[in-house]
Amino acid sequence: MAEDKSIYCASVTAPVNIAVVKYWGKRDPKLNLPTNSSLSVTLSQSDLRTHTTASCSSTYPPPDTLILNGQSEELNNRTLTCLKLLRSMRAELESSDATLPKLSQHPLKVVTANNFPTAAGLASSAAGFAALVYAIAQLYQLPHSPTELSRIARQGSGSACRSLFGGYVAWEGGEKADGSDSLAVQVAPPSHWPGMRALILVVSAAKKGVSSTSGMQQTCTTSALFQHRVKDVVPRVMGQMKEAVEKKDFDKFAEITMRDSNNFHACCLDTTPPIFYMNDVSRAAVRMVEWINEKAGRRVAAYTFDAGPNCVVYYEEGSGREVAGTFKGLLGGAAGWDGERGRAVEAAEEMAGLKEDKALASVVETLTAGVNRVILTGVGEGPMKVDEHLVDEKGEAVVS
Amino acid sequence: MAEDKSIYCASVTAPVNIAVVKYWGKRDPKLNLPTNSSLSVTLSQSDLRTHTTASCSSTYPPPDTLILNGQSEELNNRTLTCLKLLRSMRAELESSDATLPKLSQHPLKVVTANNFPTAAGLASSAAGFAALVYAIAQLYQLPHSPTELSRIARQGSGSACRSLFGGYVAWEGGEKADGSDSLAVQVAPPSHWPGMRALILVVSAAKKGVSSTSGMQQTCTTSALFQHRVKDVVPRVMGQMKEAVEKKDFDKFAEITMRDSNNFHACCLDTTPPIFYMNDVSRAAVRMVEWINEKAGRRVAAYTFDAGPNCVVYYEEGSGREVAGTFKGLLGGAAGWDGERGRAVEAAEEMAGLKEDKALASVVETLTAGVNRVILTGVGEGPMKVDEHLVDEKGEAVVS
Repeated sequence: MAEDKSIYCASVTAPVNIAVVKYWGKRDPKLNLPTNSSLSVTLSQSDLRTHTTASCSSTYPPPDTLILNGQSEELNNRTLTCLKLLRSMRAELESSDATLPKLSQHPLKVVTANNFPTAAGLASSAAGFAALVYAIAQLYQLPHSPTELSRIARQGSGSACRSLFGGYVAWEGGEKADGSDSLAVQVAPPSHWPGMRALILVVSAAKKGVSSTSGMQQTCTTSALFQHRVKDVVPRVMGQMKEAVEKKDFDKFAEITMRDSNNFHACCLDTTPPIFYMNDVSRAAVRMVEWINEKAGRRVAAYTFDAGPNCVVYYEEGSGREVAGTFKGLLGGAAGWDGERGRAVEAAEEMAGLKEDKALASVVETLTAGVNRVILTGVGEGPMKVDEHLVDEKGEAVVS
Repeated sequence: MAEDKSIYCASVTAPVNIAVVKYWGKRDPKLNLPTNSSLSVTLSQSDLRTHTTASCSSTYPPPDTLILNGQSEELNNRTLTCLKLLRSMRAELESSDATLPKLSQHPLKVVTANNFPTAAGLASSAAGFAALVYAIAQLYQLPHSPTELSRIARQGSGSACRSLFGGYVAWEGGEKADGSDSLAVQVAPPSHWPGMRALILVVSAAKKGVSSTSGMQQTCTTSALFQHRVKDVVPRVMGQMKEAVEKKDFDKFAEITMRDSNNFHACCLDTTPPIFYMNDVSRAAVRMVEWINEKAGRRVAAYTFDAGPNCVVYYEEGSGREVAGTFKGLLGGAAGWDGERGRAVEAAEEMAGLKEDKALASVVETLTAGVNRVILTGVGEGPMKVDEHLVDEKGEAVVS
């Protein structure tokens, strides 16, 4: 049999997700098993996505390679773990069906690019690992479900497991030592509650002080409050949030989202040494959301903060003018309003009143000085296969 | 018997105290009974004190009056409660000894002044109520101990009960519904550990957003983490802190102080809506203290924050150059270095190294821009009787 010199290729895009019940802390750092369950909203890939091509060929020189946004990257241990697990799943298929090409024996070339600036400080590792795992699963034609693949993506980056689904996604923390029950499941598809929107306020940030990987383990070992979060707070809140999503109860969704973000950052602050991700700009965003809700007479907006100062504001399409419009009135000068979604937002006129509210003057000043970009997006679909490859027919990475 | 037209007068000064195990939350708002015990260091009255004259006379027109820093103030409910309790203690004395003048029947005039700017945002209510209670106790010649008086001062302002003692002071929260066991006791006099110093970094603050009185009740009712603080964290920490004071173990003192400040602010952040007292300047002060300790190779400084952005840095006299000197090197332009204590501090030369440390550049910038005054002080004595009266022989307030 002649040697197979084909270039095999599969390309996918995968979404970012932003948790409303936060993941923080690992019960097993090696297997990336979390101390608690979490729940997120998957954001639309029209606005934020990772595009990844997985390719393999007997003609590629070993070892496996990764090109991220045009730069050759070293494969870290987590990536190596994912590749190893996927390869062994492919090898199992090959051993049960001799007609299959022996792709598991070929070096892999993974080329990946984000459609958003990495400098924006958006958690890109979730989308990145979801895309990597999903692309290789497509390349290898693995018959495994997204939930089964989530077990692998989790080992790349915890929150990546949630990016294997669209809509509203739970990562069930599980209890088994081997992590076999630590999996992502879809709570509801995007079509169940399609009007969910997210406005991301990108804070002109100083470099992140503490990586989330080391930060969360410091919290586990030093925070007296964190154990309480894990045992008492999150289990209760997970049930409430699933119910809020099921009922499309935005008021409850918003209440829990804000509370859980604060609870998470409280545990960061209770860490020794303390971890601060929110800064004065983040706090001004909190006050602004409170102002909007007060003015509306109900919760129409919910803030949440990951391990950084950026604010994600969830709201429903029907409250677009009150929420996004208010922020556009304030932050019209920031980048990001020029896209299709941004142009559609009408800057709210009530801003005149806001600017006369003396109590809010320093909030407004801090926000306008500190937010240099906004991203408008909404709930979206999970990873999808695409035809555009980032590797050409000769196996070279396409320079974009 | 001719009517007694004398002007009776007693004057005292009382100190500020800064807690190292924080008081936050009332189990009984009316009696000002705390959810948990707390522990503080009383600061020297050479640097920060309230001076109060209590005076009474049958010639004063009713009702009781209060003049604070030259301004006539309405007597609030808490002040009225203190006056009522003290008056009834005096009446009891009078009823058992008919020779005593009937001071309890005279209108009271209380005149009080601070030796520090109220605008500095330093908790002045503790010193204020301690001085009020102690001055009236002197005027009435009450035989009660400071601990007995602390029960009254507590009803004026919780932390005031701790200002009735010098040195290291515990407020035992107590368990009884009537508050009779909620009392301040001296853990150690200033002479036990006289080298304790405090550097207060006064942050050019915007107005405080949330009063501590309303803030703490919001925390009690909405924070999931707070109950854990009350039940598990504070009882353990109180014992450890008493031991650290007893042993003059600064390392342990510092560890607990910083941890408890963070734990308290974590509970504030876990409140709905979240309460933020620390701002970017406060956080920069935290980082600076961490830097100093890292450089020293041991804990030589401990930060703590009350319900506001000001940072109080505790250190031992022997570490003055490393701690106060480092801050003087950075913040030499701030007001407050011109006093006797400030002039004695040698600006540390290592600052040159600090300023070249790029990771610290934004910390240094934030601190120098945000701190406009420092106060150098140290552990000090409790309230004392003084001869200088703020009421003249005619019963008029002395304009200072």
